[in-house]
Amino acid sequence: MAERIRIAIAGHGNLGRGVEAAVARNADMELAGIYSRRPPEQLKPLQAATPVFGMEALPGHTDRIHVLILCGGSKEDLPVQGPQLAALFNTVDSFDTHARIPEYFAAVDAPARENSRTALISAGWDPGMFSINRVMSEALLPDGATYTFWGDGLSQGHSDAVRRVDGVADAVQYTRPVEEAVERVRRAERPVLSTREKHTRECFVVLEEGADAERVRDAIVTMPHYFDAYDTTVHFISAEELARDHRAMGHGGFVIRSGNTSAGNAQVVEYALKLRSNPEFTASVLVAYARAVHRLHAMGQYGAKTVFDVPPGLLSSRSAEQLRAEEL
Amino acid sequence: MAERIRIAIAGHGNLGRGVEAAVARNADMELAGIYSRRPPEQLKPLQAATPVFGMEALPGHTDRIHVLILCGGSKEDLPVQGPQLAALFNTVDSFDTHARIPEYFAAVDAPARENSRTALISAGWDPGMFSINRVMSEALLPDGATYTFWGDGLSQGHSDAVRRVDGVADAVQYTRPVEEAVERVRRAERPVLSTREKHTRECFVVLEEGADAERVRDAIVTMPHYFDAYDTTVHFISAEELARDHRAMGHGGFVIRSGNTSAGNAQVVEYALKLRSNPEFTASVLVAYARAVHRLHAMGQYGAKTVFDVPPGLLSSRSAEQLRAEEL
Repeated sequence: MAERIRIAIAGHGNLGRGVEAAVARNADMELAGIYSRRPPEQLKPLQAATPVFGMEALPGHTDRIHVLILCGGSKEDLPVQGPQLAALFNTVDSFDTHARIPEYFAAVDAPARENSRTALISAGWDPGMFSINRVMSEALLPDGATYTFWGDGLSQGHSDAVRRVDGVADAVQYTRPVEEAVERVRRAERPVLSTREKHTRECFVVLEEGADAERVRDAIVTMPHYFDAYDTTVHFISAEELARDHRAMGHGGFVIRSGNTSAGNAQVVEYALKLRSNPEFTASVLVAYARAVHRLHAMGQYGAKTVFDVPPGLLSSRSAEQLRAEEL
Repeated sequence: MAERIRIAIAGHGNLGRGVEAAVARNADMELAGIYSRRPPEQLKPLQAATPVFGMEALPGHTDRIHVLILCGGSKEDLPVQGPQLAALFNTVDSFDTHARIPEYFAAVDAPARENSRTALISAGWDPGMFSINRVMSEALLPDGATYTFWGDGLSQGHSDAVRRVDGVADAVQYTRPVEEAVERVRRAERPVLSTREKHTRECFVVLEEGADAERVRDAIVTMPHYFDAYDTTVHFISAEELARDHRAMGHGGFVIRSGNTSAGNAQVVEYALKLRSNPEFTASVLVAYARAVHRLHAMGQYGAKTVFDVPPGLLSSRSAEQLRAEEL
């Protein structure tokens, strides 16, 4: 068997722990180390033998690592770490600020090219698997319409927005697809759907002592960008209920395209994810793309890449010959 | 706008007509010609202006065609045409005899390489889109199980097998997934399913005059390989009913993988197709891959390729920059 791919993790939150779990499930990989801003003695790796280091150790470890998976956040961490670390390592990240992806791509591409490294940005499920399915299903059915539905699942950004409302001690927010809209799309009706018709939002809020529930509710449901275009339900619960009932990290959604190949023939393509753990699934995507990055680098394909640039076969631990014989 | 991609069609059955319809829906393509073994004056192209030729004209037309889409059958036509035409043209085909794909790949690869051509084999939905989803979902969830369900849809091979039974004048056969099995797979139970538990088969048979219905039924349901491992229902109908009710070409199915990213967290990935016209959808896949083949050829990637070798972005008429900005 070929040498195993040495993966390292930069950042040990939920996503970094998911990468640890995923690497353990891939026999052609091993975990070279976990790098964190926290003092190494505070990190608890899944397997006690995994070496842990401070982030500052990374520049001296370029020979130990085939692919470094960046598990920091898109807001503060990746815009800084991505370009820096792509000069030193082959990298994979899950940068997910959709509007800033072209800018981030350029910032990572230059140092990666200059240093003959391969850097795959914005992997995960959206951006990531959902993006691939949007692009492929549109290419297959150019005369059609694509719909992305998210949920049921907890949205981190919307939960944060609710927590910033005056009088809110803690909160979570769930995004739910409107079942009727999903069914119309599946029937190839190609409906024109407003934001309100596609998803509903549901908030579970713990009030600060003495806060006015109706004022809080009003502040949430009228919040511009986040809630004003949606039908939003607000439930007030206790801190104990929040801790007990709202810790699950499930999520998912659907990308559905319907299109006509001739006047009478509508075709429907659907890709659906039902996730019990959003960070663990995202981590699994990053790890599969780390294998592809290792191979692209060996082929001399340097610079920033996205999921659109990666042939599906490179994600698999099997050879091209095996895939043709066994899966085609 | 760049020069349009000049597509040609070899073989003008249901699939070839589907390619005509698909090319008309892609603004960056044009139809350079239809080539057939039938006399050109018997061909009725969708658009009267489309030039039609005999197959023997192909060797003289290498300069007129960017990508030739082979629309012949996998049994008789492609094993001969695929290697011959890959020496002259960039090609795309839908070779679907699963067990013989490695052999066919090798037979096409050598002439394509020798002549600096790019030949994509075995595109369509299975093999094709379903193959991609089997490979990708397994790479994402290595600790899991994959299930492919087909139907509801008419199976050409099984319909042919029924027609060969003594006493059968005409027949069609539908493959149907067992709903309960699909639901168990979607619930991430990872069931072990026998052939019988995954699909049922339903036959609509027109008897020859004087044929013994019970003998025919028995010959069908006990037929080795085709029916003996399934629960098969046989209906006897008139030739008029067959012509009236069984001309639809709908098909489809699901690729579902469930897998665990940690002991407690099962994840489910599903890809589903609901097709009103099987040949038109297959043709649309071939046409999208013709765009990718045209680009791979321009990049100097010669030889036989499969869907596993093609980056998703190459299927789209949009540029990599546009896809990053608009779809990631």
